This record gives sequence, structure tokens and C-alpha cells, in this order.
Amino acid sequence: MAQITKPSIPKGTRDFSPLQMARRNYIFDTIKSVFRLYGFQQIETPALENLSTLMGKYGEEGDKLLFKILNSGDWKAALDGEALQTQTIGALTGKVSEKGLRYDLTVPFARFVTQYRNDISFPFKRYQIQPVWRADRPQKGRYREFYQCDVDVVGTDSLVSELELIQIVEEVYRRLGIRVCLKLNNRKILAGIAEYIGCPERIVDITVAIDKMDKIGLDKVNEELLSKGLSQEAVEALQPILALSGTNADKLATLRTVLAGSETGVKGIEETETIFGLCEAAGVNLNIELDLTLARGLNYYTGAIFEVKALDVQMGSITGGGRYDNLTGIFGMPGVSGVGISFGADRIYDVLTELDLYPQDVLQSTQLLFATFGTDELRYALTWAKQLRAEGLNVEVFPEATKMKKQMGYADSKAIPFVAIVGGDEMAEQVVMLKNMTSGEQRKVTLSQLLEIMKG
Amino acid sequence: MAQITKPSIPKGTRDFSPLQMARRNYIFDTIKSVFRLYGFQQIETPALENLSTLMGKYGEEGDKLLFKILNSGDWKAALDGEALQTQTIGALTGKVSEKGLRYDLTVPFARFVTQYRNDISFPFKRYQIQPVWRADRPQKGRYREFYQCDVDVVGTDSLVSELELIQIVEEVYRRLGIRVCLKLNNRKILAGIAEYIGCPERIVDITVAIDKMDKIGLDKVNEELLSKGLSQEAVEALQPILALSGTNADKLATLRTVLAGSETGVKGIEETETIFGLCEAAGVNLNIELDLTLARGLNYYTGAIFEVKALDVQMGSITGGGRYDNLTGIFGMPGVSGVGISFGADRIYDVLTELDLYPQDVLQSTQLLFATFGTDELRYALTWAKQLRAEGLNVEVFPEATKMKKQMGYADSKAIPFVAIVGGDEMAEQVVMLKNMTSGEQRKVTLSQLLEIMKG
Repeated sequence: MAQITKPSIPKGTRDFSPLQMARRNYIFDTIKSVFRLYGFQQIETPALENLSTLMGKYGEEGDKLLFKILNSGDWKAALDGEALQTQTIGALTGKVSEKGLRYDLTVPFARFVTQYRNDISFPFKRYQIQPVWRADRPQKGRYREFYQCDVDVVGTDSLVSELELIQIVEEVYRRLGIRVCLKLNNRKILAGIAEYIGCPERIVDITVAIDKMDKIGLDKVNEELLSKGLSQEAVEALQPILALSGTNADKLATLRTVLAGSETGVKGIEETETIFGLCEAAGVNLNIELDLTLARGLNYYTGAIFEVKALDVQMGSITGGGRYDNLTGIFGMPGVSGVGISFGADRIYDVLTELDLYPQDVLQSTQLLFATFGTDELRYALTWAKQLRAEGLNVEVFPEATKMKKQMGYADSKAIPFVAIVGGDEMAEQVVMLKNMTSGEQRKVTLSQLLEIMKG
Repeated sequence: MAQITKPSIPKGTRDFSPLQMARRNYIFDTIKSVFRLYGFQQIETPALENLSTLMGKYGEEGDKLLFKILNSGDWKAALDGEALQTQTIGALTGKVSEKGLRYDLTVPFARFVTQYRNDISFPFKRYQIQPVWRADRPQKGRYREFYQCDVDVVGTDSLVSELELIQIVEEVYRRLGIRVCLKLNNRKILAGIAEYIGCPERIVDITVAIDKMDKIGLDKVNEELLSKGLSQEAVEALQPILALSGTNADKLATLRTVLAGSETGVKGIEETETIFGLCEAAGVNLNIELDLTLARGLNYYTGAIFEVKALDVQMGSITGGGRYDNLTGIFGMPGVSGVGISFGADRIYDVLTELDLYPQDVLQSTQLLFATFGTDELRYALTWAKQLRAEGLNVEVFPEATKMKKQMGYADSKAIPFVAIVGGDEMAEQVVMLKNMTSGEQRKVTLSQLLEIMKG
């Protein structure tokens, strides 16, 4: 007899229960409906990609974190004892594996755009909600299998696309009831600052320093910059930037003065001003803050950079993204600019749970359960159920005419708000005994009364 | 410079374009809403399962068709030259791989039920719609990555669950507009027939023979049965079964007589009669045919067996399933009976495409595009778009004030039915020039007129 396996799932993966799925569906359905409001269309790509598509796209560390599929059939034929001794693990892996699991949605999207370039009409507004896999060390909030939810416009430089993504952020979080702040930066402004102080390669050190102003103060920040090898002149030149404060307009005005000599910097300021102007024209009513410390994905983004934080919960960013200039270059299709953001479903889930913001009707699946005490009663309930379902109501008939306690327990466990009890008396009177599971109150109702109550 | 990869995807996998996704979403959304009408709840399980969960569950051939994940890190450390020479590919695979991709939704569901048995309230009505992976040879209509869509009730023997699945089939195909026939059989009837003719192990030969009656006739069928080693007596005893015809009631009446001596057979007949009776009580209005040739998954099913065929298209079954007695035994949890069916999304897709049954509004994403000719016009369009979206309309503003032809071409390519053109005149008059892209007709309309037309 085969040994019995104690059931478990791999570390870093998850099962989703009905309650968790109801919550996740609420999040994804809300996001999708907003995407569609702006004309974005869904695509899906396969979980399996050729390793030639994935390798080298996420850096050396990323290559290691790709889940690789062992070739089917006799994979060992590609190996021999000598190869095992002499070749690197990377080289050997290439011999026994040619496919891997999707690591993010960006590279598959770039492949998709390149592969179907002749069928796509640009600007291409797409969204994609699918799981990705990373052979990372699992830890709290970091999974090996998790969903990404990306929305991008590619094939236009227009800043109207940045506006649309901001509008989408506003509407998604308005619908979800989460108060947020959107932080906005621009890679060209950061490049301009670095250029202006004469250290074009020190962007990261500078943004880190700006970020620490609140915590350690100006003197310590300056010390740190010097200790990192910036010249006295560079640090002095940086003072007006470090002292930036006030409204977004104030900050932009200061930057205009300081960065007047940097063509790139001025371009970044103009882009940012245009985005703010478009937001005003389109009636965006979102808390947007120009934040020069925002440097996510710095090597990838070329213009606007976004990050969204929840105001009422301590949590990392729940949405982020930016403008990039060369999505598909890696696949030999140059000049495809785009802008995109990614919604962090797991974090949004945690925010909604912590703030208890899920609407009640989202989590409730069945609206009414019929409980019966015999075969005839069961058939009677089936005819009622049919008519309720025809009105769009989610209704169950408990499949066994068993003990009351078991049927009520089932209703409780599924949080079903109403139970219609059917016994001989009810059948004779052509009614059911309707029990409100919250109040405990119960009364006899006819089918038309029941319909009225259930349709509220 | 890195070599440029010509983009492609692995054999047997697919990308889904916006049109394909709209169609697939229509199918899945329709099915899901019917599942919910009956109180079924969604779960998801990870794509990655431990190989210990998957291996040995699909037979020897199935083990080979599992996609296996190469262990992370230095997987070669588990191998040496000698092992490569002496060990089987199966044993070696076990050394370098401990996870695999989900092969179906049944085994993960069985694992789920066992793992969370204390949290689940039975009967557990769940549905699951996720991709599965099989390292099969790809061919027309057979993919290495494809979605399954399963719905099951576990934890009750009640035939009301069979009824509910039949009702779900009826309602799903009514909503999709596909005319279908549901074929019904019962494993216990087949077992009873085999028992009655004294050849309990010949169920498959017998069903194959019954299946050929239409094509080759009684004489040839009898010849074939004899040539397969059935005795003259057995073949003679089988004659009333082979001659079965008429209504379902006629067939059941004959079976009652013929199988009177088989306890199992009688049980199967009674179950089938109960199911027909429940269908009548619940007002099921579906073409259901008792079909003794139906033998899918014979080793797995223990009671009712279902298969659904589209009437207006030549195609294999588009839905199928049955009753099983021991879902979770493989994981050490005995006695969990259930019944389930699986909707074949790819085939349903093909049927709807062939019969052109997709509703127009399902495939159309954007309802209105604003085309503009300058920055001011673009901002004007943005304010209009905001108000249309607030009414739930899917609206795009072309992000560049570029050539008319390009903007109209974009509307055409996305099959957007209306374009609102904004030039200086329109702005001055506080209108837009609304073009109906089907009729070509265009006229100036105010915002309130536009809203009225679009909400039409």
C-alpha cells in the first residue's frame, strides 16, 4: 500500500479559503472595473516562458531566483560525470532546463508587445493580473508565489497617460475606501540635481541623504555625504535641495532656480508641472506630494515615478510605478516608451483587513438557506429555490433532510443571514418559517413575501 | 552586448489577446455567477505543489507528465557520476526536484479538504478556476497549460447535489445560449450489468459494444463481444441491454427487469430514478438522456456519471463529471463522498466562436473616444470624460492631439462605437462633434445630450 502523504504545500505558497477569495475578488474586481473605465484591456501570458526570454533580465541575482522547469524525458542524457565536476551550476542548469516560471509581468509584457507588434494598435493600454514566482527566501509578507496587478500604456510619450494612472489610483482607492497619499518624483529632476552638483553618478546617495533629513537632521546628513566622498563644494551646492519645503509649487519654484543650468533637470520640472496642470484640469482630488526621495526602480524609470501610501496604516507602498523609455529594447524593438503602475494586492488586502473596510455583502455568498425535515419538504423547498434564483438570489437547499441543529450550524458557518424552515405545517399552508439569523426572529411568510424581503 | 532574443513562448502554451480575454472572461463570469446562485464558493490553491502530493496520483504515465521544478541552489550536489550511471531517471529526478506544477484541480482539492478538514463545514460546495500544466505532446486543442473549471460538493451522499449540478449545467448553457444534451449514466448500473452477465471485470468491453450499436449493428457487436472472449451465454444475456431503446423511463423499466438480481444494479437504477424525480420536482427543463455507453473516468466514479454535448456543433463533451466515494483517501481521510463536474473552457470558447454567440457588449471595452486637436481641446475633453466616467461609462481620451486619421484608426482598431471630436468651434459652443462609427453620421451634442445617448 502506498504511504499516506501528510498534506502540506511548499514554503512561501498559499491556499486561499472562500473568505480570502471573496476578499481578493473584491479587490481585483474593483481594480479591474476602474481599469475598464479608462479603456484598459486585459491580456494574459503563460506561466511558462522560455528561459531565453527570462534569463539576464533581472540581474545575476534574479537569474538565480527564477523557478526552472526540469526538461521532460531523459534530462540526465545531457549530463555526464565530467560535466558535473567541471561545469558551473548555471551551465549545467542550462543543459537540463529550458523553461521557467514567470518572475514578473513586465518582461512577459515586453515579449508580448514585441511578438504581436503588428497586431497591436498603439497606444496599447493593457492590464494583467496573474501570479508570478520567485525562489526567494520566504518571510512575513514575502511569498514565492503571489499575484501582480499591472496596468500600462505603451507607445505614447503623452503625459496624459501619467494623468490617467493618477486618476485610476484616485478612483480605485476611493472605491475601496482607503485614504492615500500619492508621492510623485521624476528621474530627470534627480539626474538634474546630480548633474548640477557635478556628481552625475551619485543619484542614489543623494536621494538617501534627502530621505534622512527628517530623521537625523541637516548636519548629520551633510556629514554622511562627505563621508561618502562627495566634495565640500558638492555638499554646499546641495543645500538648497536639502532645504526644500513648502507646497509642491514652492518646491518646483526652488528647483527651477537651482537647476536652471541643467537641461535634463528643467525637462523633469516641466514634466512634473504638466502633470500637476493636467491633474487640475481633470479635477483630480488626490493628495499628491512631490517627493524627491522617491527613487524606486531608478535604473528602469526615465520620467515620472509614483508611489502610493495608505494614510491610516503603517505599511510600505501599496502601488507604485513610473515612466520608462525602452520597454522592448531587450527583444529588439526599440523606441517603445510607456508608463505603468502595479497594485500590490497582498498589501491592499492587509490594509482593508486591518481597517475592516470590506463591504458586508461582498463576503456573504448565500443569502438564504432552506432547511427541511423530509423528502416532500425537500422537494417543496426545491421549487421555491428555483423561483428565488430566477430573481438572481443566491439560495441553497440543504441537501439532506437531517437534524435541525446540523442545518442551522451550516447556515451559521457560512454566515447565511436567513433560513427558511419547511415542515409539514408550512407545506400545508404554502408558506415557510423564515428565521432571521441575526435577530433570531422568525415568522411565516408566503413566497411573494419572501421574495420581497430577500430583494430588500 | 547581450544577444537579442527573438520572442516566442513554449510549445503548447498561449498568450491571450484582449479579444480572447474578453471572451474568456464572459465564459468564466457567466459560470461563476451561476455557481454563486447555488451557494458555491471559490477557493484557489498554489500552482506549485510538493511532488509528494502529486506523484502516484495520476498513474505511471501521469508521473511523467508532471512538470517538475528544479531545486534552487546547488542541485547538482545531490548527483554524482555514479548515480548518473546507475540510477533510474525517476530516482534522479527525485534528487533534484521536490516541487511540481498542479496537474489538475482534483488532487489539490483533495489535499485542501484534508488539510483544512477542521475548518471546513460540510457539505463543502466549492469551485475552482485555475490553470493546470501537463507535459503532454502538444496538438490541436491540447495544451500544456490550460484552465480547468471545477465545481464539487463533498461531504454528502444526497442526490440533491447531483440535481444541483444538473441545474447549474442547464442555467450556464441557457445563459450562454448553447443548446445542449446532458447524458447521464450510473457506474452501479454498469457494474450490475457486468455482474448479471457474469463478467464483472468486462464493464469497458460492454460499454464499448453498446456504443457501437448505432454504427455497426447488433450482429457485428455480438461477433465482437465473442471475439473478445465473452461466452455465448454472456452475449445472449446481454441482448436485452443492447436492444435498450425508447424513453429514459422505458430504458429504466427494462433495466429493472433485467437487473432485478443485482443489488448494485438495482441501487444504480434507484439513484437514477431519484435524480430524474428530483429534476422533475425542481422544474429542470433540460434534454437529459440515460446513456449506458457513458463510461468516463470509470475507475474513479462510483455513482452518477455526467457528460454534456453541444447540439449544434460537432465537438467532444463540453462538461463532464460524476459521483465519487473517496476523494481524500489518498491523504488519509476516508469516507469523503462527493460529486463534481468540470466545464471545458477551451471547448466552450470554440462553440461560442463557431456559433457566433458572444454578446456584442461583452467584446466592446471602450464606449466613447475623445479625439482632440490641441492642448486646450485635450483638457476640455478631460473634463467631459471625467463626468462620463462618473456615470459608469468606459471612456478614453486619445492622449495626443495628433492627426485625425490616427485617432480614428485607433477607435476603429478597438471597435469603439462613438468618437467625440473636439476642435476650437466645439469648445466655443460647449459641445462636441459626436460621430457614430457604425453609421458614419455625426452631429454636435451638449454634455447632457451626450450622456443621454451613451447611457441609451
